[in-house]
Amino acid sequence: MEQTIVIVGGDAAGMSAASKIRREHPQRPIIVLERGRHTSYAACGMPYYIGGLITDPDQLIARTPDQFRDKYQIDVRIRHEAIRLNPPEKQVLVRNLDSGEENWLNYGDLLLATGACPFCPDVEGVDAEGIFGLSTLESGLQVHDYLQRQHPKTAVVVGGGYIGLEMAEALIRQGLEVSLVQRQEQVMATLDADMGALVSEALRHIGVQLYLSEEFSHFSVEHNRVNGVVTNNRTLPADMVVLGMGVRPNSQLAADAGLTLSHKQAIWVDQKMQTSEKHIWAAGDCAVSTHLLTGQPVNIALGTIANKQGVVAGTNIAGGDACFPGVVGTAVSKICAVEVARTGLQEKDLRQLGIDYAVTTIKSRTRAGYYPDSGTIHVKMLGEKGTKKLLGAQIVGFEGAAKRIDILATALTAGMTIDNIIDLDLSYAPPFSPVWDPVQTAARQLTKAL
Amino acid sequence: MEQTIVIVGGDAAGMSAASKIRREHPQRPIIVLERGRHTSYAACGMPYYIGGLITDPDQLIARTPDQFRDKYQIDVRIRHEAIRLNPPEKQVLVRNLDSGEENWLNYGDLLLATGACPFCPDVEGVDAEGIFGLSTLESGLQVHDYLQRQHPKTAVVVGGGYIGLEMAEALIRQGLEVSLVQRQEQVMATLDADMGALVSEALRHIGVQLYLSEEFSHFSVEHNRVNGVVTNNRTLPADMVVLGMGVRPNSQLAADAGLTLSHKQAIWVDQKMQTSEKHIWAAGDCAVSTHLLTGQPVNIALGTIANKQGVVAGTNIAGGDACFPGVVGTAVSKICAVEVARTGLQEKDLRQLGIDYAVTTIKSRTRAGYYPDSGTIHVKMLGEKGTKKLLGAQIVGFEGAAKRIDILATALTAGMTIDNIIDLDLSYAPPFSPVWDPVQTAARQLTKAL
Repeated sequence: MEQTIVIVGGDAAGMSAASKIRREHPQRPIIVLERGRHTSYAACGMPYYIGGLITDPDQLIARTPDQFRDKYQIDVRIRHEAIRLNPPEKQVLVRNLDSGEENWLNYGDLLLATGACPFCPDVEGVDAEGIFGLSTLESGLQVHDYLQRQHPKTAVVVGGGYIGLEMAEALIRQGLEVSLVQRQEQVMATLDADMGALVSEALRHIGVQLYLSEEFSHFSVEHNRVNGVVTNNRTLPADMVVLGMGVRPNSQLAADAGLTLSHKQAIWVDQKMQTSEKHIWAAGDCAVSTHLLTGQPVNIALGTIANKQGVVAGTNIAGGDACFPGVVGTAVSKICAVEVARTGLQEKDLRQLGIDYAVTTIKSRTRAGYYPDSGTIHVKMLGEKGTKKLLGAQIVGFEGAAKRIDILATALTAGMTIDNIIDLDLSYAPPFSPVWDPVQTAARQLTKAL
Repeated sequence: MEQTIVIVGGDAAGMSAASKIRREHPQRPIIVLERGRHTSYAACGMPYYIGGLITDPDQLIARTPDQFRDKYQIDVRIRHEAIRLNPPEKQVLVRNLDSGEENWLNYGDLLLATGACPFCPDVEGVDAEGIFGLSTLESGLQVHDYLQRQHPKTAVVVGGGYIGLEMAEALIRQGLEVSLVQRQEQVMATLDADMGALVSEALRHIGVQLYLSEEFSHFSVEHNRVNGVVTNNRTLPADMVVLGMGVRPNSQLAADAGLTLSHKQAIWVDQKMQTSEKHIWAAGDCAVSTHLLTGQPVNIALGTIANKQGVVAGTNIAGGDACFPGVVGTAVSKICAVEVARTGLQEKDLRQLGIDYAVTTIKSRTRAGYYPDSGTIHVKMLGEKGTKKLLGAQIVGFEGAAKRIDILATALTAGMTIDNIIDLDLSYAPPFSPVWDPVQTAARQLTKAL
């Protein structure tokens, strides 16, 4: 009999791997341990559920544990947590969170797909009611429930990353007064400050009160419920708080078993998704990827990467031969009407790496200037002096702006120069673009500085 | 004194070149001969003016002859036509279309940017009133004027290319009954028939009556005005006719002077935009490009290519060193809510070239399935057996669908394989894409067949 494959974590990476293994081996036993109640859900859809754009949370679930069990013969065990690994014996200790029972489970191969959790500062008041991180579907349901039950009037978002901003918008949509505290001078630190300023402006435009360059200190609490956020400058009233300070890979289980950790304490894996321990694999938000421009390991918590890594891990566990070459740091978000996207390296990375670069920012239109609903688009582009290679890009603009980042993510992956980008045969018609696509307008301006 | 640069044609290619030369040489005499009355206009915007989406035709003019003269000291001579070349003497014979006067003009370098004109069949009735090709701004104004003055009730579009379809939509918007006659089994022959069928469906949906696989014969005319279009099967009533049978490069002037012609009788040029004759250059719709996948010369009449070629020609005429490497055949269009795009080679090309290929078509969503206004998108992808290289792609879908073609145009240019496309780090957030972008879903399916 074939040895059991155990997968720890039932979301994007874990279930992508499970499905891939099942396709290759119709009979092989697969057990998935999921400490929550749900599988394969769209965590990134939660701000839209909380904001009221999506009314039924079931829409966020791609497949339920029952569907996996009945249709794919994948033994999904919800409310089961892996609490210890014993690699030499190829065993994992599993706790049933409902009964408290613990049992050792044997595995042939084990995949760690334990995800990430919101970074939660170790400060006064952090355990009070009304403070939410957003990572699991359950945490999203809790926020929704809190809004229905407690009718908060004021909310503070601590941290200006993607989830923080999407949640700020969601809470504005629900009629709350929303403030946002951010240590940096602008929101969205994955953009350079000048591009982040455009996003800050968009947030102010929808009514978010921004407190930038301001240091979060602790929470003010009364009767075990949050009522304020204290910064180095002031106390902001808060009937609820959303933590938007980024996420932390769930790698404790791996660390305790002596597996090698890497960037942000994420689990180190090679391009096959194998950890430092034979027969233990990792994929998704808990693992690293290789940054294709720097060659360095990076941990980027995104569903796209989790899905790809899951498929690669599943292929290799199933006896195939797949690689996940890496990432270029592409991301996109939408704050009401404003679209934001980035790829590659930003100025602070380049300074840190000592790369000699030139930079340009252009302002153009999303469509032909004369076409209805043509909107503003800002494109910032960075290129290497000497080689003239593209290093990174950032886009902020109105409808149709952001998805253009994929052109540049593809160009980065191919190692294109700025001149190569000027020559690209991109699509043009008045409803879609000016005759020089904004990314080519940026390249034309940047090449002069290289 | 520096020798005069003469440019024949005052639209995209010609004025891009003129502007580039002026930036490099502030003093050098530049004469532009334009047989119409306008310069630098957006010919591709005319269907939207005729359809009423744009109300002021001046919006379609980027710069007027006066602006070029006053701001850039470029001597634009409208209503002047170049009628003969004398390359050995470096002279061009110019006719003033208002006075009829003809004069020889000396040039140091000459750029042919004569554009293209709608293919006009040599049949009975073709000279009648009410039959329109669309190429110059003036032809667009004439259609608009005809609609205002004659109040046509029925229109027939002959040919189902981009301009034909965009005009069909424009005339539907103006309340006409519109029929379209197309020799092929589907509209838009730059798509494979299965993808063209989706566009045919979209046209029927907005009320266009399609007559496919039907051969146009001639026009029915009364009192020198068109009143019908005769096909091999029927006579369609027509108060007006739009020719949408493609365009033909304006290369007669070059041909008469013995310059080498190429694909579709377009003027042959090398990558520097030099013709077979020293000191004579060509750029834009009248010239060829190199197809980057086949290495063959192709003539594709698009403003993007004209602009790029114009800049390259201008750079080289100004003494610089620029190349236009070529095209991959990218195009995009929008028929009401339906977006259509293509790049690379299509099935008929591959059969003709004897390339062993696999093909797949997938149906996905433009955004996350649960996100509001998520629409259908069809992606067809072609890859080479053996090398697994991407060969081409076609997209038909709703809002946000078409611009994804640029990812694949970039991948084609970089020579990427289908597996490279699966690995791309494309942007993802629910308002923009499912977690697997539709182009990657297509690639994942296609790789199984390669």
